[in-house]
Amino acid sequence: MMDIIFAERAVVRLVVDGRVRYGLWTDGRIRLYEGSPLAGGRPGRRTVRPDRARLLAPCRPSKVVAIGLNYRSHAREMKMPLPEEPMIFLKPSTSVIGPGRPIVRPAMSRRVDYEAELGVVVSRTCGRVSPDEASECILGYTCLNDVTARDLQAKDGQYTRAKGFDTFCPIGPAIALDADPRDLRVRSLVNGRVRQDGRTSDLVFSPAQLVSFISRVMTLHPGDVIATGTPSGIGPLSAGDEVVIEVEGVGRLVNPVTDAS
Amino acid sequence: MMDIIFAERAVVRLVVDGRVRYGLWTDGRIRLYEGSPLAGGRPGRRTVRPDRARLLAPCRPSKVVAIGLNYRSHAREMKMPLPEEPMIFLKPSTSVIGPGRPIVRPAMSRRVDYEAELGVVVSRTCGRVSPDEASECILGYTCLNDVTARDLQAKDGQYTRAKGFDTFCPIGPAIALDADPRDLRVRSLVNGRVRQDGRTSDLVFSPAQLVSFISRVMTLHPGDVIATGTPSGIGPLSAGDEVVIEVEGVGRLVNPVTDAS
Repeated sequence: MMDIIFAERAVVRLVVDGRVRYGLWTDGRIRLYEGSPLAGGRPGRRTVRPDRARLLAPCRPSKVVAIGLNYRSHAREMKMPLPEEPMIFLKPSTSVIGPGRPIVRPAMSRRVDYEAELGVVVSRTCGRVSPDEASECILGYTCLNDVTARDLQAKDGQYTRAKGFDTFCPIGPAIALDADPRDLRVRSLVNGRVRQDGRTSDLVFSPAQLVSFISRVMTLHPGDVIATGTPSGIGPLSAGDEVVIEVEGVGRLVNPVTDAS
Repeated sequence: MMDIIFAERAVVRLVVDGRVRYGLWTDGRIRLYEGSPLAGGRPGRRTVRPDRARLLAPCRPSKVVAIGLNYRSHAREMKMPLPEEPMIFLKPSTSVIGPGRPIVRPAMSRRVDYEAELGVVVSRTCGRVSPDEASECILGYTCLNDVTARDLQAKDGQYTRAKGFDTFCPIGPAIALDADPRDLRVRSLVNGRVRQDGRTSDLVFSPAQLVSFISRVMTLHPGDVIATGTPSGIGPLSAGDEVVIEVEGVGRLVNPVTDAS
């Protein structure tokens, strides 16, 4: 599991004896939580061998709030001015999948793109918090693929359909608890070839600024996820591809791509 | 309660003895459900006097999927061509409030509008259903106010912030179980004065067509709500106003308006 979780301490979600449990990845093993780390639960004594664990999405967000155009490099690529405030949109909870699960290209679209992103996982209910307070509302960081039907994004104007299909929000493999988000490398690879290679130091708005801004619009709940935007280098996926989102100090999220039946 | 619920049979949600319960409004009384009507629950024998009940939002949607420009009259008003397929966007679950709860105008916006809509409540999990099958996935209909910060809608392009603030999705007072959605009058009134007055016969896409279309993008879950679009006559709300959404055969949803503190 060290090949996919780069953090020393991270939260995972997995099935144990037919039940969904949270686990703490640390020292090369997984300690199961009693309850949920998002509701005051603590790691207990029982451990699971990582090689036996099939990981799920590391949390179940009630909503995923995503940010448009938050990397200076991507804004240049799109020939757009830098935003004065975050531009937000929503991905539905039904779009979330975990590591290893297939991204399904819908029949409605002719072009489905990967977008590598740093995902922020909210730890507690927060409404109208300052950026300083917002830092206290972040449980940790995960890898996120903001999969987008590029043709429908252009056609609809609104992003909801283009970014809202089932399977269009892979997250995981874990929530890194101690990552410093100020300067992390964020990459995507398709079939082993690097397609995006950015750094979070290029972000226009930091994770804490984003949590603060969003919390002044809508209350955030524990387990909600913020997709912080994608660096330059976006491109298409085909059936049979394997796409990897890699965030330094966080992990490596791998998903195959299929076509809808 | 007959002054606000126009249906003979309708589902309500309310607090009884400190617990949230579902009830069936019928014959002038409320029969409490054992469990949830969205999970196979049935009305039991215990009843509650309607004059003692304070109603909550009649369901707790995991998502609210809203439709742009779905009334021919509103498309004309906006000088827009009729859409060839539904244009969808999302309102977060955190925007939902029940009858009587205040709509809070956020400090970020200078103009907050009402939008009267027929709300569709989904009864079961559905993915990729046909319009015929979609009719079987509808529990009933409710009144919905798609409150919109008009200035931020124009500024952002994406509707998420403008339509996603906490309190921006009043629904209720009940889910009418036997309404025929083909030709219902949909009105808004502000301080008693009629502002919108449309009929669902003017809809471009019917509720069943919308459920079918959306289900081909994202899986719908029991209690999810579709906001079917608004007729012509949109306009602003001020602090101190009382706004009413009235749908024939369904009910009358009343909310006061306040400014954020």
